[in-house]
Amino acid sequence: MLYHVRMDVHPPVDHRSVDFEQLKVEEKRIAQELQRDGKWLHLWRIAGHYANVSIFDVADHDELHRILTSLPLFPFMSIDVTPLAQHPSSLR
Amino acid sequence: MLYHVRMDVHPPVDHRSVDFEQLKVEEKRIAQELQRDGKWLHLWRIAGHYANVSIFDVADHDELHRILTSLPLFPFMSIDVTPLAQHPSSLR
Amino acid sequence: MLYHVRMDVHPPVDHRSVDFEQLKVEEKRIAQELQRDGKWLHLWRIAGHYANVSIFDVADHDELHRILTSLPLFPFMSIDVTPLAQHPSSLR
Amino acid sequence: MLYHVRMDVHPPVDHRSVDFEQLKVEEKRIAQELQRDGKWLHLWRIAGHYANVSIFDVADHDELHRILTSLPLFPFMSIDVTPLAQHPSSLR
Amino acid sequence: MLYHVRMDVHPPVDHRSVDFEQLKVEEKRIAQELQRDGKWLHLWRIAGHYANVSIFDVADHDELHRILTSLPLFPFMSIDVTPLAQHPSSLR
Amino acid sequence: MLYHVRMDVHPPVDHRSVDFEQLKVEEKRIAQELQRDGKWLHLWRIAGHYANVSIFDVADHDELHRILTSLPLFPFMSIDVTPLAQHPSSLR
Amino acid sequence: MLYHVRMDVHPPVDHRSVDFEQLKVEEKRIAQELQRDGKWLHLWRIAGHYANVSIFDVADHDELHRILTSLPLFPFMSIDVTPLAQHPSSLR
Amino acid sequence: MLYHVRMDVHPPVDHRSVDFEQLKVEEKRIAQELQRDGKWLHLWRIAGHYANVSIFDVADHDELHRILTSLPLFPFMSIDVTPLAQHPSSLR
Amino acid sequence: MLYHVRMDVHPPVDHRSVDFEQLKVEEKRIAQELQRDGKWLHLWRIAGHYANVSIFDVADHDELHRILTSLPLFPFMSIDVTPLAQHPSSLR
Amino acid sequence: MLYHVRMDVHPPVDHRSVDFEQLKVEEKRIAQELQRDGKWLHLWRIAGHYANVSIFDVADHDELHRILTSLPLFPFMSIDVTPLAQHPSSLR
Repeated sequence: MLYHVRMDVHPPVDHRSVDFEQLKVEEKRIAQELQRDGKWLHLWRIAGHYANVSIFDVADHDELHRILTSLPLFPFMSIDVTPLAQHPSSLR
Repeated sequence: MLYHVRMDVHPPVDHRSVDFEQLKVEEKRIAQELQRDGKWLHLWRIAGHYANVSIFDVADHDELHRILTSLPLFPFMSIDVTPLAQHPSSLR
Repeated sequence: MLYHVRMDVHPPVDHRSVDFEQLKVEEKRIAQELQRDGKWLHLWRIAGHYANVSIFDVADHDELHRILTSLPLFPFMSIDVTPLAQHPSSLR
Repeated sequence: MLYHVRMDVHPPVDHRSVDFEQLKVEEKRIAQELQRDGKWLHLWRIAGHYANVSIFDVADHDELHRILTSLPLFPFMSIDVTPLAQHPSSLR
Repeated sequence: MLYHVRMDVHPPVDHRSVDFEQLKVEEKRIAQELQRDGKWLHLWRIAGHYANVSIFDVADHDELHRILTSLPLFPFMSIDVTPLAQHPSSLR
Repeated sequence: MLYHVRMDVHPPVDHRSVDFEQLKVEEKRIAQELQRDGKWLHLWRIAGHYANVSIFDVADHDELHRILTSLPLFPFMSIDVTPLAQHPSSLR
Repeated sequence: MLYHVRMDVHPPVDHRSVDFEQLKVEEKRIAQELQRDGKWLHLWRIAGHYANVSIFDVADHDELHRILTSLPLFPFMSIDVTPLAQHPSSLR
Repeated sequence: MLYHVRMDVHPPVDHRSVDFEQLKVEEKRIAQELQRDGKWLHLWRIAGHYANVSIFDVADHDELHRILTSLPLFPFMSIDVTPLAQHPSSLR
Repeated sequence: MLYHVRMDVHPPVDHRSVDFEQLKVEEKRIAQELQRDGKWLHLWRIAGHYANVSIFDVADHDELHRILTSLPLFPFMSIDVTPLAQHPSSLR
Repeated sequence: MLYHVRMDVHPPVDHRSVDFEQLKVEEKRIAQELQRDGKWLHLWRIAGHYANVSIFDVADHDELHRILTSLPLFPFMSIDVTPLAQHPSSLR
């Protein structure tokens, strides 16, 4: 099932601290692993923002929740989740 | 270039009138033509809403504007346009 | 899977017209049928509002979308859909 | 009487501090006790958010207020309370 | 139990029509009856607005809902309901 | 003259500090004194919130401003002031 | 006492109808009369908007309410009322 | 002096009526005249919207107000006006 | 030219620090100087808020910007600027 | 392609620290360099705000994103990006 997820990152005040850099490296690793697993279908950067729009393809709400809340940057993010259904005009 | 576009349709009061049905048929035809042309990459229905999230791949703002404003349902839609850039963690 | 859905009804200006009364009768019939089917788990009235909070248990986003958009009052409603996951402290 | 309550948790900056973990353990204990008492009827996690939607069945506003404000995480939460009435189409 | 209710009236376009004047007369009659019954405790006009702030003292959410939705002007109102509890500093 | 005032308290991070407790004790003392003087007519707790709705009866805006800004918790509050007029349907 | 009032006018669809022109003439007459009476202290046009910011000097909320609700354009206006107190740095 | 003005056009329901087309022709004529006069410096279309961002260079607020309110489409527009000052980093 | 300016002050956490008191003294001195110069025409306190509504009469946007940004409390304020034009019904 | 970008700067609490002054000097240098390159077309100060409206002329979303996110003040800014298309009435 498809979920549209917008993630806006709000870095801590000392955003250049070692800790936060470490988190970002780990976040990238996990994001790429989930893309290879076919769960994180699309990951786009919103131009001008420290934010992304993503499309997830997962079994259900619980799996989506586990993935999002286990992201290293989760504590620094505000997240919007929108369930997507099949559009009658879509050729896919 | 990629654009994230959300379209919310606000049908007229007499939404079952012949006119509006005609517009919807025409809208579907155009949407599918643009998908075949590779301009309308993704078209998803937002569950529970008369709205969609779409990803367009077009040359520039002007082309996007021409496409959106020539959609038959344009006069009945509120539209949000968000430019998308390459995400450093995306494998695509 | 569980979905939290808020529905606010915005009746047409001639809300006492025969048409709208007919729609409401049909809406009630469908709502009770879906409750008997176990899909519409909870249906509460928001005190002081022509609105409800409902909990649906359906297979996926598409089924939820089909149910909501086929409700007779759908054209007169603004709807909010929130996917619900298992809460770690819930005993259910 | 039924109350729909949404709770969004805003953890402190040092959210991994011992204190906050302690509060979460205590919160879970109280939440489960209130569920066994039949006061906290439903407790769902909002997918992608550190938030929940709950349904309380308590005697009156004062009891609801006492319960919510005595929750260990109350100082870290923004809360929305919505009184629920019987829906004419509900079979419950 | 006490409820704080704000009611904003949005009169129809032909607000000087006989119908609407009739509704207002009926609204006043019911409002004064409910005040004599001790259910409608306070009724204040918000200066500069076609709106009021009221305090209701009723048994429960359902009674509040019945009262509000049976007001003649209900179809022309947007309503906000806020449950009130005892304040620890109140001398009443 | 009557003023409807909503006060939402945003306690400091170290809300259990001695200072803040002291302020709350002083706030209660002043609130009760003003109630005895007939200036603070009503003081209700908003269920589920660290907030109150109050009705003040004072000479003019300046007196209201003096009272509110001299409350010990004023620096920790967001306040909404709404002037109330006589409602044509009120029996008071 | 001073009140800051913002009035945004939302003309009816047939805003060039004779009726509405008549109302505007009457509105101007009353506004100028109230200025001569010293009640309507200031009346400024918000550049680019069919709206004004005004300062009223009247006895109390009730007088303000009577003045505003008896303005011919009242049914076509959204109004914001803000009570003004003496500023400690003002030389007036 | 420079003003940043955003204009969103909300066409009437019968947006293809002769009247509205006439207004648009007249609007274009005036807009181009003001550009030639050097008053309407910039006029850009917001992609995907029936809206524009414009920069005006006029003597004062009154001149801006006269220009905007005399635009044929003024009754169908919501307008935002933002005064612009010299930026310390601008080379112009 | 006239500008309507609303200033909301958000004092620092240690609002009783010597620094902030010093700033307030300096702010008052400058405000009164500008009033004597005829630039700061009106300065009213918004009842119940650490905020003011002011009317400035200055040459242009740049002068307004210089005045506002050089106020000692500028770093602690959120500011709204609204250009005012002559109102056709104003007798001034 | 043209982008309308609004940048609101939210300076850190110790906004007079050496660090932040350094960043501002660097920001100005980069801004002027980009203006000489023809990428940063317009840069206006919003009167009364620590904010600017800018017009960028760059190849695509990615270039815009690189420029904005590499600005020294980026971590202290909230940014709004609006793609601009050719307006049919513009003479440019």
